[in-house]
Amino acid sequence: MKVAFIGMGTMGAPMAINILQKSHDLTVYNRTKGKEAVVVKAGAKRAASPKEAAAEAEVIIVCISDTPDVEEVILGENGVIHGAQPGSIVVDMSTISPKATRKMAESLKSRGVKMIDAPVSGGSEGAENGTLAIMIGGDPEDVGKARPILETMGKTITHVGPIGAGQITKAINQTIIAGGYLSVAEGVALGLKAGLDMEKVVQAIGGGAAASWVLTNRAGNMIANDYPLGFRVKLHHKDLRIALEAARELGVVLPLAALVDQIENGLIGRGFGDEDVSAMARMIREQSGIDPC
Amino acid sequence: MKVAFIGMGTMGAPMAINILQKSHDLTVYNRTKGKEAVVVKAGAKRAASPKEAAAEAEVIIVCISDTPDVEEVILGENGVIHGAQPGSIVVDMSTISPKATRKMAESLKSRGVKMIDAPVSGGSEGAENGTLAIMIGGDPEDVGKARPILETMGKTITHVGPIGAGQITKAINQTIIAGGYLSVAEGVALGLKAGLDMEKVVQAIGGGAAASWVLTNRAGNMIANDYPLGFRVKLHHKDLRIALEAARELGVVLPLAALVDQIENGLIGRGFGDEDVSAMARMIREQSGIDPC
Repeated sequence: MKVAFIGMGTMGAPMAINILQKSHDLTVYNRTKGKEAVVVKAGAKRAASPKEAAAEAEVIIVCISDTPDVEEVILGENGVIHGAQPGSIVVDMSTISPKATRKMAESLKSRGVKMIDAPVSGGSEGAENGTLAIMIGGDPEDVGKARPILETMGKTITHVGPIGAGQITKAINQTIIAGGYLSVAEGVALGLKAGLDMEKVVQAIGGGAAASWVLTNRAGNMIANDYPLGFRVKLHHKDLRIALEAARELGVVLPLAALVDQIENGLIGRGFGDEDVSAMARMIREQSGIDPC
Repeated sequence: MKVAFIGMGTMGAPMAINILQKSHDLTVYNRTKGKEAVVVKAGAKRAASPKEAAAEAEVIIVCISDTPDVEEVILGENGVIHGAQPGSIVVDMSTISPKATRKMAESLKSRGVKMIDAPVSGGSEGAENGTLAIMIGGDPEDVGKARPILETMGKTITHVGPIGAGQITKAINQTIIAGGYLSVAEGVALGLKAGLDMEKVVQAIGGGAAASWVLTNRAGNMIANDYPLGFRVKLHHKDLRIALEAARELGVVLPLAALVDQIENGLIGRGFGDEDVSAMARMIREQSGIDPC
């Protein structure tokens, strides 16, 4: 299949390489020059603009960091919309606003171009191994056409609903992990302050109702007060903003997500935005007198 | 071994039966008459008071609902302390205050009686199947002596630290699940209000960083707005009070546990205290306009 891939970041580059390895014909574009080199070396063509990348593609993948960037790449002066052929499908794998997603899909539709939203979770490791979880919103027919390409990148591929539904699903994911991280941070602080051996505690409670991916994989960071990546605080914070905006539009009450959003405001302001999300434990540890502020 | 068991509730009765099945010599006592009948039928002797139950026992187990009840049963007029032999071990499997636990251990010590705290998680199902997680605080020697009895009731038996450490560990467990339930409730409300098929959403995100026991086992209740037991709101609320009291004594900051405590205040006040903890979703659903208040 003829595929375009726009966005050669930490996620996009390894995802593009997985597409190439299944013998698809790939053209890539990146805003920052040079980052696409590794993918071009693996066999991809290089385009000079999103418009040019999209020109011959049946499937046009976008994977970049935030809503305005995706809007620029799709609707901007040299955007996908000015190059894409009628009948081609834009697959946005970025994590952005569901509302903006629906608007872009409308604009593309007026030119006969389809769009589905397909944000991912699983981090750079999942991108490299082709084991991402992909959450899809869009028309079933379009999802079906894009599926062979998505299968080169992901393991759990779930079509959740109409356009925007993938982004809402990702927002739900980020809302749920927000509480997961904060509750484990609180538990760790309580145990440390009480003088417990927290590794034994995690072992004692890890098989019951407190069990979670965060407890298994990130309590260790919080106990050691050391937060290697992982997933950056500032990216989770960006995703929570999307969740909170969606909640505002829909009239949904998210007190816990809002609390975590505020804690992350502080962390980012203090220069911890590039640490792993488990750095949320910094605030609880410091304010509980475990570490100096 | 000669064992006494005080507290024939939803947890205590099946736990006592598991002890009997390993051929230990068991004497039971319950404050409410009649509840011990099923255990007596299975082969236990019946005592007229905690004092009498403790009189010949090497290990004296207590499993009742809250701190004042445990204090009454252990230190009260006909309490364990007046019957227990020097060298015997009191094993408190209730979930109560770690501070009160340490005080009771001091009182018992003055009579030559040992005490360990060994609260459990795993619910009535774990009690029946002998698969409870047991979190233990106490002297290693005493824990070692009680272990053969604990092994009849639990699968994961972890000695976490000195007297009171089991109760702190249980408080940590209840703090962590508080955030687990609330974050899943928020995610469910966001998805329902956006019109998503939430069963598909749970499937899409259940393999990644949002994975948890609560998501797997309780999101269904929240989607259906139906909260069969499970674990009662009012018991979790009692346990959170213990966690928040410990946090207050230790100077630990638990904003998320405090938020959930407030939500549960409302649920209990409105008559939902006997529903499963997943009923936390009621508040989020109602306030988000999904259900009428």
